Amino acid sequence: KINGARLWDSLMEMAKIGPGVAGGNNRQTLTDEDSEGRHLFQKWCEAAGCTMGVDEIGNMFARREGTDPDALPVYVGSHLDTQPTGGKYDGVLGVLGGLEIIRTMNDLDIKTKHPIVVTNWTNEEGTRFAPAMLASGVFAGKHELQWAYDREDAKGKKFGDELERIGWKGDEKVGDRKMHAFFELHIEQGPILEAEDKDIGVVTHGQGLRWIECTVTGKESHTGSTPMHMRKNAGRGLARVTELVHEIAMKNQPNAVGAIGHIDVYPNSRNVIPGKVVFTVDMRTHLLDKLNAMVEEFNARAPGLCEEIGLEFSSEIVGQFDPPAFDEGCVRAVRNAAERLGYSHMDIVSGAGHDACWINDLYPTAMIMCPCVDGLSHHEAEEISQEWAAAGADVLLHAVLETAEI
Amino acid sequence: KINGARLWDSLMEMAKIGPGVAGGNNRQTLTDEDSEGRHLFQKWCEAAGCTMGVDEIGNMFARREGTDPDALPVYVGSHLDTQPTGGKYDGVLGVLGGLEIIRTMNDLDIKTKHPIVVTNWTNEEGTRFAPAMLASGVFAGKHELQWAYDREDAKGKKFGDELERIGWKGDEKVGDRKMHAFFELHIEQGPILEAEDKDIGVVTHGQGLRWIECTVTGKESHTGSTPMHMRKNAGRGLARVTELVHEIAMKNQPNAVGAIGHIDVYPNSRNVIPGKVVFTVDMRTHLLDKLNAMVEEFNARAPGLCEEIGLEFSSEIVGQFDPPAFDEGCVRAVRNAAERLGYSHMDIVSGAGHDACWINDLYPTAMIMCPCVDGLSHHEAEEISQEWAAAGADVLLHAVLETAEI
Ligand SMILES: NC(=O)NCCC(=O)O
Ligand SMILES: NC(=O)NCCC(=O)O
Repeated sequence: KINGARLWDSLMEMAKIGPGVAGGNNRQTLTDEDSEGRHLFQKWCEAAGCTMGVDEIGNMFARREGTDPDALPVYVGSHLDTQPTGGKYDGVLGVLGGLEIIRTMNDLDIKTKHPIVVTNWTNEEGTRFAPAMLASGVFAGKHELQWAYDREDAKGKKFGDELERIGWKGDEKVGDRKMHAFFELHIEQGPILEAEDKDIGVVTHGQGLRWIECTVTGKESHTGSTPMHMRKNAGRGLARVTELVHEIAMKNQPNAVGAIGHIDVYPNSRNVIPGKVVFTVDMRTHLLDKLNAMVEEFNARAPGLCEEIGLEFSSEIVGQFDPPAFDEGCVRAVRNAAERLGYSHMDIVSGAGHDACWINDLYPTAMIMCPCVDGLSHHEAEEISQEWAAAGADVLLHAVLETAEI
Repeated sequence: KINGARLWDSLMEMAKIGPGVAGGNNRQTLTDEDSEGRHLFQKWCEAAGCTMGVDEIGNMFARREGTDPDALPVYVGSHLDTQPTGGKYDGVLGVLGGLEIIRTMNDLDIKTKHPIVVTNWTNEEGTRFAPAMLASGVFAGKHELQWAYDREDAKGKKFGDELERIGWKGDEKVGDRKMHAFFELHIEQGPILEAEDKDIGVVTHGQGLRWIECTVTGKESHTGSTPMHMRKNAGRGLARVTELVHEIAMKNQPNAVGAIGHIDVYPNSRNVIPGKVVFTVDMRTHLLDKLNAMVEEFNARAPGLCEEIGLEFSSEIVGQFDPPAFDEGCVRAVRNAAERLGYSHMDIVSGAGHDACWINDLYPTAMIMCPCVDGLSHHEAEEISQEWAAAGADVLLHAVLETAEI
């Protein structure tokens, strides 16, 4: 078993970097805080005897050697970046849980045939630069590196420039590494494991996702002196589309979700009728046909709802992945580990997207989930217990040991 | 008659300060650009032989002496601040039109019994710091000076600190001046004069206004892993209230308006369900009873629309004025001037709020309006013709001369 107290201490130590305003974290990707978190992780990895590699998109790879020089490494890891008002565990548990299994192997002097590599993937959250899972997506060949570099944040800063600015652009070509397998430990971010009173979620599938960035254009004009019949209020387009997204998700129950999280209003002045609203629709379900049908209905109805009231509507997909099915062998290794350790467990579908979803397209992959209080995530009050974290890392350790061969 | 070409040149010269992105202006109150515009205005006033006074809230008063040392001055003026994506004429025409009548009186060596004072009121627009017409409101005793100093912009900067920073906090006590009368020339910002093909609007009344800042609180959580039935999506509250405001305005036709211009979503991340949305409702009509009934209906229905879907609703009035009726004598002076000069004219109600609405509570006041293309204002494409501007300033000159006594 891993050292639960040490894992917890490391989680708390990392959480001191980029503190939020309400007990959580704001350590968004490619900020100074992100850089500081990376330095701390590197220091810890080197102290644990690992060598650090960094690729051209800032992905970090801390390697513990194996006994067979020809064996491909078993990879573990997740991400250290957070939401603007994020929690202390989303992503971080998977990275520091990976470090903890290496520390434990060192303590117990365990040698594996395959090397073990702990990864910190850049920009998993996708808040500052869409889409989410950007750097694992480039690694998996889903996006071009230059396209990623050109992504802009809300202030117009480019991903590539910010990566260089914080000093974490490495030399290694992105995607050059080959993997024997990949395991990602993550908090559930949903309410199921806690409700079912299970220690461990064995993740068999994930939801597919579509992010549709919409622009509704009306005409900005004076709120006081523009008669009602002459208005083109883009805010009303937002209102109608907000309810449409909700309706489509509700129609596709169970197991479908939809919402608008990001909204920018122009010019955003109390006495100016909004001339333009830009917002991103997030729709998900684990069934590809259903997901496509939801998007189809959205595309069929949203433009009309806006045009009816004199507004123009346009949209663009800014993030997407299809529902992944994880590797049977890796999933079995996770289930076996939970079984062997005596942890209660159940198979579940991941509600969120994860770096593991992209890596799964290339190499045998699986995920381990632990519960989180009230299913709350992407919120500063995100909480887990030390025991939940330790159980997850224990299962990670055993699944990895089975796969990396002692 | 005034010199229309000179007035136009001054308008174009001022528009070079704080240019917008699409041909208009971004010279928001208490920015560096605002300060630069004030310096240019001061330079022009001094060149025209005026002396400049500045009060503790930054209102500027350029005085041309009269022949009777005991006579109270006739005030004219408006504001030099603009919307973030504003036009070149909203406010500016009234200030530079005031300067132009002084230049014309100098040219023609006209002396008046009453002094003439051209005013630039601070923060008329209310975009950066709510409410609108803030400094004329303090002048008229509607707000406390300290309350105004404590107003914060979206970045948390205080009005008082920004006023000091740009160097325009004067020594004069706010509201110490007495007026014989006040005249404000302004573009209509609505479509009526152009549609009716009139040169001049004789403003008899204004609309009353209520700005209701609303906060809808839900719970931020993950857009992917939070099941639909566990969501508290504050964005849906915004959607429902947006449509409510529209419905109430439509129900009160003719002559009522309502919209939401300003919306802030928290945390505004693509994969976080909005936990909080703050927005400002703007409702207006020129009938006080109707205005109060609209607000009453809003207050009765908005909370329920949010509570029905698990959201909390709270609201606060952040701006308000009752429908003003301008002074009969001053209105007559405007109508007489238009008549005498042979300009086509009609009586109208101002759709927007103006500094004149506050001053009207203290001293005899009236407004002169000129048409603007397509009724468009609070938009960078706001446009007027040189002839419209000149006609407005001509009427201002004659109304002032009648009132200030030659
Ligand atoms: N795990 C997680 O929150 N990832 C971000 C991508 C998503 O929105 O699912
Ligand atoms: N004239 C003008 O746009 N004033 C700003 C206050 C208002 O919104 O009416």
